[in-house]
Amino acid sequence: MAEENLSFDVYHPQPLLIVISGPTAVGKDAVIKLMFERKFPIHFVVTATNRPRRLTEVDGVDYIFVSTERFQEMIDNNELIEYSWVYNAYKGIPRNQVEHALSSGKDVILRIDTQGARKIRQIYPECVQIFLVAKSKEELEERIRKRGTEDEEEVRIRLATASEEIQCITNFDYIVVNENNHLERTVETILSIIDAEHHRVHPRRINL
Amino acid sequence: MAEENLSFDVYHPQPLLIVISGPTAVGKDAVIKLMFERKFPIHFVVTATNRPRRLTEVDGVDYIFVSTERFQEMIDNNELIEYSWVYNAYKGIPRNQVEHALSSGKDVILRIDTQGARKIRQIYPECVQIFLVAKSKEELEERIRKRGTEDEEEVRIRLATASEEIQCITNFDYIVVNENNHLERTVETILSIIDAEHHRVHPRRINL
Repeated sequence: MAEENLSFDVYHPQPLLIVISGPTAVGKDAVIKLMFERKFPIHFVVTATNRPRRLTEVDGVDYIFVSTERFQEMIDNNELIEYSWVYNAYKGIPRNQVEHALSSGKDVILRIDTQGARKIRQIYPECVQIFLVAKSKEELEERIRKRGTEDEEEVRIRLATASEEIQCITNFDYIVVNENNHLERTVETILSIIDAEHHRVHPRRINL
Repeated sequence: MAEENLSFDVYHPQPLLIVISGPTAVGKDAVIKLMFERKFPIHFVVTATNRPRRLTEVDGVDYIFVSTERFQEMIDNNELIEYSWVYNAYKGIPRNQVEHALSSGKDVILRIDTQGARKIRQIYPECVQIFLVAKSKEELEERIRKRGTEDEEEVRIRLATASEEIQCITNFDYIVVNENNHLERTVETILSIIDAEHHRVHPRRINL
């Protein structure tokens, strides 16, 4: 009989590639760090960069800090999924991290600026892209200043860039407001998104 | 300057219409009931039907039980968003419940069979449709029998119908396995989906 061929066993979720993006200082790193600390079973991609390390940063955890020469080599050897020149430094996504995790069935999360997010979408159309926004321009400005690492001209440039980046919002799947002092809520929302996406009917995400 | 016109205040989620569907006896009612008991801030649409009340059911809570004459009147007065004849009875979704809740900014959830879900999609294309499945044909059969309300022929018909309904899965947005003794987990997943959808970039769901 025909119905004998129709399986009830239809739910086979695939691992997800989750992209966290948004303007500078919106809190991408803080979000990823909190998820990492809570030991969520997900591979956190560590970005490679040739920019100097901040005193608070740990090599191999916050970024993979490499020389300009080594970064050039990574480009030449096709070791990076994408790379870009942002605020006077290169940043790139190591290919082996993403592919190894996905092929072992693990979700992958990576933080990237908005221009990088667009490139990731071209390479992995089925990725889940989340755009973080600050509650207001004032909150974002405050956070940029709090870092204490930028001069007035750089603050101005970063705010102007953030305003432009918000125009890209329709390229993203989700928008999450990362309000001051509500980092927990932001992470909860991101976890809901990941949970939901595992159940999403999508030809590339569930083997029907 | 151009960037002055670009607002950071981009997140204005709209209320959602959430549709819970799936084969007979998969647990739609149990899911909705648990959400209701937990007092989730959502409007639970009560379906109108002309079928007789089960002893365990409460009028106005489980269903709005009406006579065939009154059901005909609801159809004639365009009081139902959609209605259908399923397993020897009419079932219909009262329009006023859905429209009143949505216009007051409240999410709405309704349970409906798969043919009804297709009609709801036509009327509200932006609705979120969740398809519940049993873990296996055996689990579904067990649940149909447990109800103790159907004879062998009806069990056979319902199982065959369920097999056919699973073919509709690609019309849905999400698929959730409602495993025996894991109702809590099913509800958690549905809540994640609702949370995620409130953040989804969708022209009809967030005013950008």
